Amino acid sequence: MAESWPFLDTFEPNFRPLVVIELAKDTKEETIEWFTKRIVDKKANGGAQLLVKPLVTENGDEHIYLVGASHLRLLLGAETVGLVKECSDNSMRTFTYSSRKTFKDFADDNHNFLTMAECQYIIKHELENLRAKDEKMIPGYPQAKLYPGKSIVRRLLTSGILVQIFPLHDREELKKLRHSWYGRVKVGYQPLDEIRCYFGETIALYFGFLEYFTFALIPMAVIGIPYYVFAWEDYDKYVMFATFNLLWSTVILEVWKRICAIMTYRWGTLLMKRQFEEPRPGFHGVLGINPVTGREEPVYSSIKRQIRIYLVSLPFVCLCLYFSLYVMMIYFDLEQWALDYHEVNESNFSSLMLFVPSIIYAIVIEIMNRIYRYAAEFLTSWENHRLESSYQNHLILKVLVFNFLNCFASLFYIAFVLFDMKLLRQSLATLLITSQILNQFAESLLPYWLQKRHKKRMKKRMCSLKTDMDLSLVEQVNLEKEMGTYFGTFDDYLELFLQFGYVSLFSCVYPLAAVFAVLNNITEIYSDALKMCRVYKRPFAEPTANIGVWQLAFETMSVISVVTNCILIGMSPQVNALFTDSKTDLILTVALVEHLLLAIKFIMAFVIPDKPRDIQIKLAKLEFESLEALKQQVRATDMYNSEK
Amino acid sequence: MAESWPFLDTFEPNFRPLVVIELAKDTKEETIEWFTKRIVDKKANGGAQLLVKPLVTENGDEHIYLVGASHLRLLLGAETVGLVKECSDNSMRTFTYSSRKTFKDFADDNHNFLTMAECQYIIKHELENLRAKDEKMIPGYPQAKLYPGKSIVRRLLTSGILVQIFPLHDREELKKLRHSWYGRVKVGYQPLDEIRCYFGETIALYFGFLEYFTFALIPMAVIGIPYYVFAWEDYDKYVMFATFNLLWSTVILEVWKRICAIMTYRWGTLLMKRQFEEPRPGFHGVLGINPVTGREEPVYSSIKRQIRIYLVSLPFVCLCLYFSLYVMMIYFDLEQWALDYHEVNESNFSSLMLFVPSIIYAIVIEIMNRIYRYAAEFLTSWENHRLESSYQNHLILKVLVFNFLNCFASLFYIAFVLFDMKLLRQSLATLLITSQILNQFAESLLPYWLQKRHKKRMKKRMCSLKTDMDLSLVEQVNLEKEMGTYFGTFDDYLELFLQFGYVSLFSCVYPLAAVFAVLNNITEIYSDALKMCRVYKRPFAEPTANIGVWQLAFETMSVISVVTNCILIGMSPQVNALFTDSKTDLILTVALVEHLLLAIKFIMAFVIPDKPRDIQIKLAKLEFESLEALKQQVRATDMYNSEK
Repeated sequence: MAESWPFLDTFEPNFRPLVVIELAKDTKEETIEWFTKRIVDKKANGGAQLLVKPLVTENGDEHIYLVGASHLRLLLGAETVGLVKECSDNSMRTFTYSSRKTFKDFADDNHNFLTMAECQYIIKHELENLRAKDEKMIPGYPQAKLYPGKSIVRRLLTSGILVQIFPLHDREELKKLRHSWYGRVKVGYQPLDEIRCYFGETIALYFGFLEYFTFALIPMAVIGIPYYVFAWEDYDKYVMFATFNLLWSTVILEVWKRICAIMTYRWGTLLMKRQFEEPRPGFHGVLGINPVTGREEPVYSSIKRQIRIYLVSLPFVCLCLYFSLYVMMIYFDLEQWALDYHEVNESNFSSLMLFVPSIIYAIVIEIMNRIYRYAAEFLTSWENHRLESSYQNHLILKVLVFNFLNCFASLFYIAFVLFDMKLLRQSLATLLITSQILNQFAESLLPYWLQKRHKKRMKKRMCSLKTDMDLSLVEQVNLEKEMGTYFGTFDDYLELFLQFGYVSLFSCVYPLAAVFAVLNNITEIYSDALKMCRVYKRPFAEPTANIGVWQLAFETMSVISVVTNCILIGMSPQVNALFTDSKTDLILTVALVEHLLLAIKFIMAFVIPDKPRDIQIKLAKLEFESLEALKQQVRATDMYNSEK
Repeated sequence: MAESWPFLDTFEPNFRPLVVIELAKDTKEETIEWFTKRIVDKKANGGAQLLVKPLVTENGDEHIYLVGASHLRLLLGAETVGLVKECSDNSMRTFTYSSRKTFKDFADDNHNFLTMAECQYIIKHELENLRAKDEKMIPGYPQAKLYPGKSIVRRLLTSGILVQIFPLHDREELKKLRHSWYGRVKVGYQPLDEIRCYFGETIALYFGFLEYFTFALIPMAVIGIPYYVFAWEDYDKYVMFATFNLLWSTVILEVWKRICAIMTYRWGTLLMKRQFEEPRPGFHGVLGINPVTGREEPVYSSIKRQIRIYLVSLPFVCLCLYFSLYVMMIYFDLEQWALDYHEVNESNFSSLMLFVPSIIYAIVIEIMNRIYRYAAEFLTSWENHRLESSYQNHLILKVLVFNFLNCFASLFYIAFVLFDMKLLRQSLATLLITSQILNQFAESLLPYWLQKRHKKRMKKRMCSLKTDMDLSLVEQVNLEKEMGTYFGTFDDYLELFLQFGYVSLFSCVYPLAAVFAVLNNITEIYSDALKMCRVYKRPFAEPTANIGVWQLAFETMSVISVVTNCILIGMSPQVNALFTDSKTDLILTVALVEHLLLAIKFIMAFVIPDKPRDIQIKLAKLEFESLEALKQQVRATDMYNSEK
């Protein structure tokens, strides 16, 4: 098969461009030749056995390549990455080429058996696993060292020869997806399965969580409205509302695990085996032997990393936290000043001025969050983690701690030091609404507008260009390669996490927070969808089985909110009026209720199974089958031996 | 191989009896013939392919059978059950017959490659997996129904034809083990690896935990002694002691997970795949299709079980709890009466009388615990759980809740309702010491004495018996079949759990509790060892990777103890003296400290990895190898396909 391919069969009729490789403009000829040769080379020779086709750019030089693969190659690749697909009997199984006939919708001529996102994921995986054999360096670049087993693409990326690799959009599919996702005004669910087919599981799971979370907030919002409208201030109503909120937030987080399991089972990622994790691209160290793989690769002492974490990163984070608290104190000075001003010269303007410090503070918080984010990324990358997952965990921890303090410290201070519930309500509302508006604007609308302007200019330039290739493809590639890169769901989850904090931490003081959160999330779905479809390059699909560390983060927040809400209720004048004779009794009662609620939370988390019963049965069935298969194998050996 | 076996090759020279099968004395001839035929039959014919040999008993009739297996059969069985053994390169791997040469100490003539406990476990597994083919009933017993796939041994057991199956002791080995375990007075560790070889992992892990726990208590005991000796009553010393205790108990529970991982990795059970769980022997229901296996087997509606649990078991448990509290109130009346009596006629006798109510109450608690235990077993068995693990979990939950309340309710009442620290100290000491003495006596010494008496009588009877078989073997089997059955580590763990409660819940009131616990545990090791070696039948080995639900139980206890200790410290007069002006401040401070301690606990549990780094690397290495093997396989298919 491979033998019959022309070296660069640019015009093969079946060639479907899937992934774009952009090299640096001044890349040497010999490097390009060697690299493309390695990509198309047979597996047996250590190649990736893919198809490559150069693309003529505006200036006529060839530094952009399109990568595709034959149908058979993609199927074999699906087996390598361990894709799980649905069988004809509706069970989910790991795809293997030899058992391909048993899979639903499989036919030798059905090129839609694998979704485009899956094909692109396979190609990315194959390219990343293209490893150096006996090359000591990248041809033409003696300073770009290689050693046996080093990923070629990663070295090309780190030495700047390879600018970027990204998957192409499929204009037809995207149009359909856009239409069913946000094209028409409708009430209903998002087309999560279609999103998953187009963008992969990580992104579909984010939108699934966003949707689920929005629906889950609706009861809280509905119950919260009468509290605002009728200005209910009875303590028993507040206690009921807060108790409902606390138990509800536990229930929704537990139920999410179940819904997540149902979705990822259907998508096959729940069953997918974890791949062995390679070192992340930025990781560096002296060459050594990896104790796990026994291969030669860079090794970095874990003690050195610990020193960097505890002696540099930790103090830096503490310093940032201190700075954030310092800014908070300035905000309170401003607040006081505005109050004084309002008292001296009372007017419409001065009462408007009362909101100004909060708004300024909300903007400053957003700016500080963003600056800190860069610092955290720099520091975590400098800590030189070997694995991407470890890098992500350290980054998330750093960012979460800072953002939590930065966003909520002022509210905690107002609530538990100043005891000013009116100011708390006002601050909470200003912070929540300002941050929502800022986020929507900075995340989606601004990039969308920039992208639109850029597209217009690009189209004009394209018209003046002459080439004998399919012009729409050239135009598409040139347009997409200039688009921004989507850096993963981190920021989107973080936004939801902080919103969950605003809603749950002080829910009994400001029941309307849930209403704002629901409204924001509905627009968030649309603006995030717009962002994914129109603003950013298509991201590579990433198979995932759950929302990972975010589940833990949300659960921690809901534990903290039990504590804060109990204290707030205990501090309310209505409850205090009940315990006029003994403040001690009041505090003891509050502490008792808090412990009871926490105990109920933990028991509920323990009792509600993480996976629905039918998924459990399906998983048990698969496990049983593999055990039986193993036994059959043993039995065969048995019989063979007993015949001897 | 199987063909050359005589049907009952009673005198095969290599026959080593491993397991004893005792049938009912009036078992029909045809049943025995069918059963033994099935045991020795070839695997291909649905048999177990083991060796069977009848044993002549005192009365001369044959209803006891010895089961053994050829060396090859055992090796193949080891593959079936998925044993993990050490390879020549010191890594642990799942044993397969084809790769047998790569394992350490393997030689075709080395019959000690598998330990005797492993051989017996394999035989038990093979016997239990001897399944009905097309038999509709057990021959000779039309009422004992069978259906295809039903375990024959389980049906024989439930219909009373099979009295018991138990593994034989190895007198030589046992003697050696006894000597190194408790035969000589010495300071040092137990021979855990030898215990594991002889009794299996579950029991070795219990003794490992007992030893670890004893060592872990020593620092608490050492620090506690000066508090008692010098009667330190300064609050700061108590606070320090309690804080140390709380953090220490978290650390020891986390470190235990690591030590447990090290041990079970060495023993191979950490890597052992979970076997598919069959229904437990007592499970009954109408015949239906199991959704997981697709096999015909009894099915019992989960709703019916839920009804039984929530409408019968739960109310019954609540009733028992109420009764236990009622008994507690009687105890307090008695206590009051003794106090009054002491006041009226003060004498040596009356001051001794002060302790009598506590001692009586301690004995009543023990009796109630034991009676409740039977009730809980009956109820849980009546709930008709399909799996042994689910049965065990429900039983443990029932027993734990009752025992916790039964043992600690009076202490909680004294501490937090009566506020009587002197009485608390006295009650705690009496309860702890009485229950320890009772337990040691009822668990080990009494059965040991009974067993010894029985053995003497048996020996006398044996001397009058004449048979041409090896007399020592006949004597041994007859002796062992009358020995008590060891019902697992449940009671032993429960005892440790309650002891942990006595030590940690009120540690700041009675620092000497840890000293008593250490002393008790040292004797406990010896009496438990005696019990295992001398009193009970040898139990079947059970591979296990951890102490299961007990880890959770101990962790929950340590969380509760944070709360109780904080309250106790807050109630102490020394601390109260510090906060004379405001009781509110005191309570708030206590609540704050408690939350901080709990937060530290959870963070510590999160930060300390459950497995040491080298075990993690070894596990990662194994996973990597299996992934690589899979890839090689795919690559081979790849190449094969590309050649076509």
